[in-house]
Amino acid sequence: MSERVVLAYSGGLDTSVAIPYIAEETGAEVIAVALDVGQGGEDLEAIRRRALACGAVEAVVVDAREEYAADFCVPALQANALYMDRYPLVSALSRPLIVKHLVAAAAEHGGTVVSHGCTGKGNDQVRFEAGLAALNPDLKVIAPARDYAWTRDKAIAFAEERGLPIDVTTKSPYSIDQNLWGRAVETGFLEDIWNGPVADLYDYTADPAEPRAADEVVITFDQGVPVALDGRPLTPYAVIAELNARAGAQGVGRLDMVEDRLVGIKSREVYEAPAAIALIAAHQELENVTVERDLARFKRGVDQRWAELVYDGLWFSPLKNALDAFIAEAQRHVSGDIRMTLHGGRAVVTGRRSERSLYDYDLATYDTGDTFDQSLAKGFVELWSLPGKIAAERDRRAG
Amino acid sequence: MSERVVLAYSGGLDTSVAIPYIAEETGAEVIAVALDVGQGGEDLEAIRRRALACGAVEAVVVDAREEYAADFCVPALQANALYMDRYPLVSALSRPLIVKHLVAAAAEHGGTVVSHGCTGKGNDQVRFEAGLAALNPDLKVIAPARDYAWTRDKAIAFAEERGLPIDVTTKSPYSIDQNLWGRAVETGFLEDIWNGPVADLYDYTADPAEPRAADEVVITFDQGVPVALDGRPLTPYAVIAELNARAGAQGVGRLDMVEDRLVGIKSREVYEAPAAIALIAAHQELENVTVERDLARFKRGVDQRWAELVYDGLWFSPLKNALDAFIAEAQRHVSGDIRMTLHGGRAVVTGRRSERSLYDYDLATYDTGDTFDQSLAKGFVELWSLPGKIAAERDRRAG
Amino acid sequence: MSERVVLAYSGGLDTSVAIPYIAEETGAEVIAVALDVGQGGEDLEAIRRRALACGAVEAVVVDAREEYAADFCVPALQANALYMDRYPLVSALSRPLIVKHLVAAAAEHGGTVVSHGCTGKGNDQVRFEAGLAALNPDLKVIAPARDYAWTRDKAIAFAEERGLPIDVTTKSPYSIDQNLWGRAVETGFLEDIWNGPVADLYDYTADPAEPRAADEVVITFDQGVPVALDGRPLTPYAVIAELNARAGAQGVGRLDMVEDRLVGIKSREVYEAPAAIALIAAHQELENVTVERDLARFKRGVDQRWAELVYDGLWFSPLKNALDAFIAEAQRHVSGDIRMTLHGGRAVVTGRRSERSLYDYDLATYDTGDTFDQSLAKGFVELWSLPGKIAAERDRRAG
Amino acid sequence: MSERVVLAYSGGLDTSVAIPYIAEETGAEVIAVALDVGQGGEDLEAIRRRALACGAVEAVVVDAREEYAADFCVPALQANALYMDRYPLVSALSRPLIVKHLVAAAAEHGGTVVSHGCTGKGNDQVRFEAGLAALNPDLKVIAPARDYAWTRDKAIAFAEERGLPIDVTTKSPYSIDQNLWGRAVETGFLEDIWNGPVADLYDYTADPAEPRAADEVVITFDQGVPVALDGRPLTPYAVIAELNARAGAQGVGRLDMVEDRLVGIKSREVYEAPAAIALIAAHQELENVTVERDLARFKRGVDQRWAELVYDGLWFSPLKNALDAFIAEAQRHVSGDIRMTLHGGRAVVTGRRSERSLYDYDLATYDTGDTFDQSLAKGFVELWSLPGKIAAERDRRAG
Repeated sequence: MSERVVLAYSGGLDTSVAIPYIAEETGAEVIAVALDVGQGGEDLEAIRRRALACGAVEAVVVDAREEYAADFCVPALQANALYMDRYPLVSALSRPLIVKHLVAAAAEHGGTVVSHGCTGKGNDQVRFEAGLAALNPDLKVIAPARDYAWTRDKAIAFAEERGLPIDVTTKSPYSIDQNLWGRAVETGFLEDIWNGPVADLYDYTADPAEPRAADEVVITFDQGVPVALDGRPLTPYAVIAELNARAGAQGVGRLDMVEDRLVGIKSREVYEAPAAIALIAAHQELENVTVERDLARFKRGVDQRWAELVYDGLWFSPLKNALDAFIAEAQRHVSGDIRMTLHGGRAVVTGRRSERSLYDYDLATYDTGDTFDQSLAKGFVELWSLPGKIAAERDRRAG
Repeated sequence: MSERVVLAYSGGLDTSVAIPYIAEETGAEVIAVALDVGQGGEDLEAIRRRALACGAVEAVVVDAREEYAADFCVPALQANALYMDRYPLVSALSRPLIVKHLVAAAAEHGGTVVSHGCTGKGNDQVRFEAGLAALNPDLKVIAPARDYAWTRDKAIAFAEERGLPIDVTTKSPYSIDQNLWGRAVETGFLEDIWNGPVADLYDYTADPAEPRAADEVVITFDQGVPVALDGRPLTPYAVIAELNARAGAQGVGRLDMVEDRLVGIKSREVYEAPAAIALIAAHQELENVTVERDLARFKRGVDQRWAELVYDGLWFSPLKNALDAFIAEAQRHVSGDIRMTLHGGRAVVTGRRSERSLYDYDLATYDTGDTFDQSLAKGFVELWSLPGKIAAERDRRAG
Repeated sequence: MSERVVLAYSGGLDTSVAIPYIAEETGAEVIAVALDVGQGGEDLEAIRRRALACGAVEAVVVDAREEYAADFCVPALQANALYMDRYPLVSALSRPLIVKHLVAAAAEHGGTVVSHGCTGKGNDQVRFEAGLAALNPDLKVIAPARDYAWTRDKAIAFAEERGLPIDVTTKSPYSIDQNLWGRAVETGFLEDIWNGPVADLYDYTADPAEPRAADEVVITFDQGVPVALDGRPLTPYAVIAELNARAGAQGVGRLDMVEDRLVGIKSREVYEAPAAIALIAAHQELENVTVERDLARFKRGVDQRWAELVYDGLWFSPLKNALDAFIAEAQRHVSGDIRMTLHGGRAVVTGRRSERSLYDYDLATYDTGDTFDQSLAKGFVELWSLPGKIAAERDRRAG
Repeated sequence: MSERVVLAYSGGLDTSVAIPYIAEETGAEVIAVALDVGQGGEDLEAIRRRALACGAVEAVVVDAREEYAADFCVPALQANALYMDRYPLVSALSRPLIVKHLVAAAAEHGGTVVSHGCTGKGNDQVRFEAGLAALNPDLKVIAPARDYAWTRDKAIAFAEERGLPIDVTTKSPYSIDQNLWGRAVETGFLEDIWNGPVADLYDYTADPAEPRAADEVVITFDQGVPVALDGRPLTPYAVIAELNARAGAQGVGRLDMVEDRLVGIKSREVYEAPAAIALIAAHQELENVTVERDLARFKRGVDQRWAELVYDGLWFSPLKNALDAFIAEAQRHVSGDIRMTLHGGRAVVTGRRSERSLYDYDLATYDTGDTFDQSLAKGFVELWSLPGKIAAERDRRAG
């Protein structure tokens, strides 16, 4: 029996061409696996048919939108995951989910090799291969773009030569990856980092500068999970999808940054992530209200490490599991409502209420009813200052 | 000779009344010390005359604006100092500078006691007293609001009774602290954290929702210090003042949050910090371009600790000094230009250029000229994934 | 009905005298609570009778040895808890357990006040009162030594005057706190930190310099819990008790250090902790074998924070709970055997074996059977070095 | 003109054979560079002559002992550098120094290639090549053991065939790397991690179990640099050399551990580092006395990261420079004397004195003269406990 290659299939030119190309190069049968992770575009059935038309022996299509939202986006939200304090890990979140389904398809259909379309200078190759190493280290990997120096021009020529059922005429100047949690765009002219982004880069967001009426939303969280909008109970997927529409319509979530890739270089990236940016702002403020100070301070370091690990392709790793345990415990009381105004590119919290609040009006108020005993402060301040005071005396003595 | 009390003097009702009150309570002479830290309002000479009219034996006034910008705001900028990822430390930065001048005035004028107007449930008492403990632990402290339960109503009655030259009729519902780096507002109705802020809270910023033309600015940094705007060389003070005006006119820098005070309670705060928010965004992006990845990752933890320390009143402390040494080394190459659009409440970086850039076009580009050797990636990815792979095999073995 | 005070009772002079003293001062009834946490000495029944003889209305005695070992010592072991890399938290561990039983006794017997014997310059007052604040904030606290400036001399005079059934003649020059996890000694001559410790300070450990035969022990762990010695299944209490005897007989676990107290001063401390030191060394090495590298590196920071939190009295706190969740996940595979030589004050690991080992002989060996593919190294090294290389080129360009 | 290869030369079999082998394989001239970093053994002149006899066109020998001590060992001491809390970085410290001299020799003698003897599964290849990438990225690298799969057996055959002046008969079962800071040993039977070490592994240390008289030493530090022993001023090199002898004679500094290599595997290592272990223990205790609490707590994380970075080959890196700046500031007051007993494998501090001490007898003592105001403690404890208390109340409310 032939060896079988499980291919991460998008339906686009490169991976469509990869089906016959891998088959010819390796003599293997190709099984195409395509996921809906909220990227929009064609329906899964059309993608499935194209894979078969290109020569795949099997074509597996999965609607993974609810799974992606609940098991990948929500943990990122609970970690307030912003790589370099900016980037909400759009591509880095979907890759481990795709890996999980590739490994499942390989098990079901007798695949022994996995193939992906990543190049050798990006992060996604690491996310695919580190995930595969963790989930099934027996699977071999082929990455045509990296291992066979496969390029777009070669792909077009190959597609035309074989008459593959793919449109090779519409050529976007942009390299795009998008899913429910956001959208990433790269393109040649942005590689000059002094150039600003232009309007047609964007698809998830309207121009924030365009005048329009503001939108107000109340987001309800239960233990760090968004469970309702404006009082309507929704799944995490539905919350994110609706907020992408509403926050996107207000221009929320455009990002433009220079970023440190895992492979050691800096790159310029433009992102759109309307729901992610709005939800993280809301979640952080609900944590401000419901999480105790020392825990909140330590969690910032945990959150940073979580984002770095996932960015660096280590979703399936022992440290990730332990950070998740910490975060789960920290989310126990992150329940309540956040009211937010979406407008002009801004997602601004204007109110918060929670039965698990640690904000105590009686302790905080300067009005009648103040229960804070100010006489305690003197002793506190003196002992708080004592180590620094002793050190300062020593410094003076030392001259 | 009488004991002498050095009073941190603002020119307002509370500290004006404190002059005769402290004198009567303690039998001491009062020396008023007032600083211009960019808070605007009355000129220093008027403040000086009022202090003397209220009974001060000396009134020291200091234009500390350049010192404040260079020695307090710039270090905060280099640390990207945002307490709880939000608050740029407005009041926390000015207190150590005031302490420094109080200690100097005590030395010059024979003061043995220092007095400040802080209450016993806020952070500022700690910042004053921890600073004094470090700079001159022999100085005693009187805080009338805390130690004598002094209130605004008592102050008004006292002022009227003595005929002090103070206007007691204009009563603001807001408790305000402001300086060059920003403005903090507290008020009774915000103590209900579900209530949103209202328009008349704000003074440094215009309504971000109001339509207007965008402003574009190029900020030049030299080793982490902002040294020019749009090519015009400026002192740090002038940079900050101009950006407060320009970014403020675009509604940049409004903040509304629940915050963890050092004394152990959560409080609701509204801030405006147009220059601070714009400068930190610009500085962070220039660091993205010029600071190496491992250093950038570790610096995030240093920055967080710096902000916590300063928030917690420990500006003058051994750990602060050591963090400063780390940050100074990290700023060596943070030089270059950031182009930024100020508009609609947003301060958005659109371009960056630097002779110290670590962004390497030839390594980053996907176009002709790419010098990145993709064949290196395979070995990297495999060894990068190896610990997780070995652990995953163990986990499977363990079942 | 009278108010009832629940007193943390040791059976010694100070707390025995406190029974009638508190009763007289406050008009309250006193309930004495004494715990066996492995401190040795008198049996609980004798202590109970003395409390009643001194005037307590109730005397509650609890054999808490197994609970202390399982719920307090084992978590400390799993966190490799060494405050300042040295001190295994002897007293800091027993205080939260005592607090738990005081709160339970107050609930059962109608107590509204809790009393402890700590002074105002030590750590233990914080551990008692922070624990009480967390477990039952309605309980008031009396600390006679701190609040009434009660001293040993006053206590002796009071005991003699009232004819209390306490031996006031045997006066130790040492202030001692001891339990299953170790023993702490303070004394006047050690307050000169140039003075070395003397032989009669020690009780849990023999002189390490004395010649004797070595002892070899195999410690078995299951998920970070010590469950057997030399193949004999034992409870955590029995493991610790036996190792205190065996490692103590070899002089293992003497410590002498200057330590940072929470109240802001440095103090000199001498400790003995034979089982704790031996177990932590064994546990750390088993973690070296079974815990993945990234997790191990991050866990060092978690361990440090855990030790600081517990030292600082915050056993019952949200951050402690979240750190515990992280540590529990990290212990999942910390199972196996450690062989250790106890001799001459040293506890030295000589062998380790585990079914959960991540040590892979085939990858590690330089002999036949080596499966490590050295050709992967080149790509790894080049990309690993790339950020530093780009930075070094920049530095040279910058001159 | 021929290309010239600069070879890191030890004088032993492998690198001696590499001289003619590289010359033949590449057609290049070979320049041998040998450093004395305190490894003992042959004198440099004999090594120089052998290099020339084996065919080197130049042989550069450098007595780098003082430089190594001052610029590499002392910084490691100031960072209390113990990788995985155990290993004092013996080999990891000497590699960057060797790299520095290789780069200098290449510049002086027209070398364009550097060669080292490391394999592809160890850490040292990374330390060499990351160092070269930083110091001179134009230099190419040849690693015969890794790149040509060169083995010891091949080397012996080659040496005999060519009649090279090297003794190929004495075959040690051990793979050893040693220098002033310590000694590392690997060998086949230790690859079974249940096997204990045997006596003839050791060379720097006597058997700790052997009875002998104790040695007492007073180590004087000036700003974290060891400057005298027993009152005799010495260079850092002389301090370390003398302590290697004295602590080694007492069996101090033997280590046996499973370690996480950078290349992703765990390995078994046995080390001896008598001076390093004694000095770090002394230095840590002097820091306990002279470094303020918050700084000391943060420095532990800095120290850990420093050790990881250097272990991972990143001595010449921007983060290392910034950590060094932090550490230098933290060492400002680490001056004074530590008295230590060396005996039976233990290096135990028994006394400390310093003009920069933060230990304040008057605050610490429980005897007459106590200046600590215990009345301050109550307010401190209450506010310290307040966040946890509020959280505990919330938790009870939440049920």
